[in-house]
Amino acid sequence: MRSFLEEARVLLEELVALPTVSAEGRALEEGAAKVAEVLQDLGLKAELHRGYGPPVVYAEGGEGERVLLFYNHYDVQPPDPLELWETEPFRLVERDGLWYGRGTHDDKGELVARVMALRLFQEKHGFLPRVKFVVEGEEEVGSPHLADYVRDKKDLLKSGAIVWEAGGVDAKGRPYLYAGLKGIVALELRVRTAAFDLHSSYGAVVENPIYRLSRAIASLRDEEGRVLIPGFYDRVRPLSPKEMEVLAEIPDESEALKEALGVRDFLGGARNLEFHQRLYAEPCVNVNGFHSGYGGPGSKTVLPAEAFAKLDFRLVPDQDPEEIPELLRRHLEAQGFHDVEVVVLEKGEHPARSDLSHPFVGLAQRALEEAFGAKAVLYPNMAGSGPMHPFLHHLGAPAVGLGVGYPGSRVHSPNEHIRIRDFERGTLALLRLLELYFLGS
Amino acid sequence: MRSFLEEARVLLEELVALPTVSAEGRALEEGAAKVAEVLQDLGLKAELHRGYGPPVVYAEGGEGERVLLFYNHYDVQPPDPLELWETEPFRLVERDGLWYGRGTHDDKGELVARVMALRLFQEKHGFLPRVKFVVEGEEEVGSPHLADYVRDKKDLLKSGAIVWEAGGVDAKGRPYLYAGLKGIVALELRVRTAAFDLHSSYGAVVENPIYRLSRAIASLRDEEGRVLIPGFYDRVRPLSPKEMEVLAEIPDESEALKEALGVRDFLGGARNLEFHQRLYAEPCVNVNGFHSGYGGPGSKTVLPAEAFAKLDFRLVPDQDPEEIPELLRRHLEAQGFHDVEVVVLEKGEHPARSDLSHPFVGLAQRALEEAFGAKAVLYPNMAGSGPMHPFLHHLGAPAVGLGVGYPGSRVHSPNEHIRIRDFERGTLALLRLLELYFLGS
Repeated sequence: MRSFLEEARVLLEELVALPTVSAEGRALEEGAAKVAEVLQDLGLKAELHRGYGPPVVYAEGGEGERVLLFYNHYDVQPPDPLELWETEPFRLVERDGLWYGRGTHDDKGELVARVMALRLFQEKHGFLPRVKFVVEGEEEVGSPHLADYVRDKKDLLKSGAIVWEAGGVDAKGRPYLYAGLKGIVALELRVRTAAFDLHSSYGAVVENPIYRLSRAIASLRDEEGRVLIPGFYDRVRPLSPKEMEVLAEIPDESEALKEALGVRDFLGGARNLEFHQRLYAEPCVNVNGFHSGYGGPGSKTVLPAEAFAKLDFRLVPDQDPEEIPELLRRHLEAQGFHDVEVVVLEKGEHPARSDLSHPFVGLAQRALEEAFGAKAVLYPNMAGSGPMHPFLHHLGAPAVGLGVGYPGSRVHSPNEHIRIRDFERGTLALLRLLELYFLGS
Repeated sequence: MRSFLEEARVLLEELVALPTVSAEGRALEEGAAKVAEVLQDLGLKAELHRGYGPPVVYAEGGEGERVLLFYNHYDVQPPDPLELWETEPFRLVERDGLWYGRGTHDDKGELVARVMALRLFQEKHGFLPRVKFVVEGEEEVGSPHLADYVRDKKDLLKSGAIVWEAGGVDAKGRPYLYAGLKGIVALELRVRTAAFDLHSSYGAVVENPIYRLSRAIASLRDEEGRVLIPGFYDRVRPLSPKEMEVLAEIPDESEALKEALGVRDFLGGARNLEFHQRLYAEPCVNVNGFHSGYGGPGSKTVLPAEAFAKLDFRLVPDQDPEEIPELLRRHLEAQGFHDVEVVVLEKGEHPARSDLSHPFVGLAQRALEEAFGAKAVLYPNMAGSGPMHPFLHHLGAPAVGLGVGYPGSRVHSPNEHIRIRDFERGTLALLRLLELYFLGS
């Protein structure tokens, strides 16, 4: 087992060292080339598909009838705020049983776990099963070209089932899996009130862009988190009895999560089923950033000329990411915010949810339970987003996510890390899934 | 005249080159030493008074009974945002009849104009009149020690009248003067909602600090700029008939100013007397900065853990800067913002207004009119703030501001500058004021 983890660590070290920040267009060619090399070394035929943003690494190989497709991505979130990192973001650091570094969980660690599971399968059973990999380089900026890619390559990608990018254990250490993702659309709101920054004494007569933007943001939701944009909930599909049943079976992790996140209380004081409904099955608006004017030490008597905020909306079936910016614009107009400009930052992603009754969902749940020796928790979909919709839509196969993280992994934040023990068991669960899917036991 | 401007330019060049940013504690010793040297060279006895923050440069000298005191400051505002400067902020650049650089107007250019006026007086009349200078180094951070300084040194500073730090011409090119300043108090609002930044998918259940802070800011004023904090207006002293008369005589510069500032309309559509009342005689709240979360290119699906905003309140007689933070805290508490922390950034400054009937006010107005050959506009007080209150209170003398700027000088902003022609005439007006005050004609 030591050599398996050592091998994984070397692979992950090489991947984390590449600062593949898609939002900044950094090191994406190098990232794609490295991933292709790793998949070639596994015994697959890898190629870089161009014309869809940063290269998509496609690989396939192995023997047999059934085909399993793995979706992963080699890009990562920006590392800032840098000053909060306790290690170098682009260097794998092992400390106290943890692997630190940007991408250790999202999504380089997950990719390495899959590669290692296939190596273990090959060692144990003497052959590589028939698998395909799609590893893209712009997941963290909303996968703007992946829907086109999957549509164009749907015959090539044809598979019986899909293993989605990531997963892990929950706050209580129970393994979990999920069969869907929220949709997303990312926007920027901008306000300009003067030609240049002014002395703040003009604040007695000149509008303040921070005030305007603050009011606009305050108008988007109520204190409990419910979105106040007219029409926002119109397309939300009611949950099916099976989906409600699966939601109701999720153990209440809200108290443990509250402590792990350092949160006083959840929006609306939600817990239990209500908490799970909100987190996994309801849409929301989130403000990712707000910047204007002076932010240094002490004070500065300035009246800024402009302000901007970045937002994302998380969507559930059957909301349409292309419709949301227009609803938002109409809302702002109706509220008198003629001075607030709405800029769409990304094309957006449709929400997706696999059929929870598909046998592959059950196989994945069983694989986790055997590897962890504990009941696995099934989520109809996760709170996060990703480009699952085109895969479900064009390939007609279910997608299930399972993997190597835990709720403290600090995904998208400083000090991202995974626990080596989670990596180990997550990889063994993937091995079990390969065995159940390809060998039937 | 050429050599006078050349001499002034050399002096200003040396002062601008020192990055005396008080908010960042930069180059203040060097700034004080340089100012003392300049005043010594003029023939005054200069000394650095310590124990009141950065050294206060005190200088006195000259002959005669009557004493005139000049108040100036050698510190400047931070230069950021640096990317918007077309020249180096700490280098004097002459271009198209303008002098660019941080402090060219506020307040190094004004100090140089006074030094040059005294040199011209000496050349013309063969002696230096009896003057005193107080040049402090923390005006831009609210002069937290100057009230104590003036109280402690009131016998030393005793003077018949005070020339305040700055002035200039209005948008129409008319010279102006003023006899008071607004008070100010600078604060920071802070919100923290989690132990660390989270993936934005948690936004469905975890509070967003930007939303909370936006709501808090939106609660501070109405759309027209009126402050909504209970008790805020309680101590505002009604304007006297003389003050109303002076306000009514101010020519309406609002249209020209609107264009110069690139503003669509003023708050509440104010113009004429209403505009002047708001700008010069009414208090207000202003947001100087708001920062939280991601601000780089593209989007980042992060839920920030904290947000902060910097505010200033501009006050009029007899509002008390020490009372405002408590009123704000009570307001936030009453509105349910228990999570918004109020931090006072500076001690604050009391509002001040000289007696508009004092003869020195008339002399200053006459000096401007003779030098400019145009009617001078008198403002009861300016929209800006400064530590005038302790001077009026302890010395019992009136203070009048006149100087070398214009409304396009971009004070506190990138590309701060003065027009050389304004500097020239402003200096000659100061010379006339010296003559009228010391020689009687």
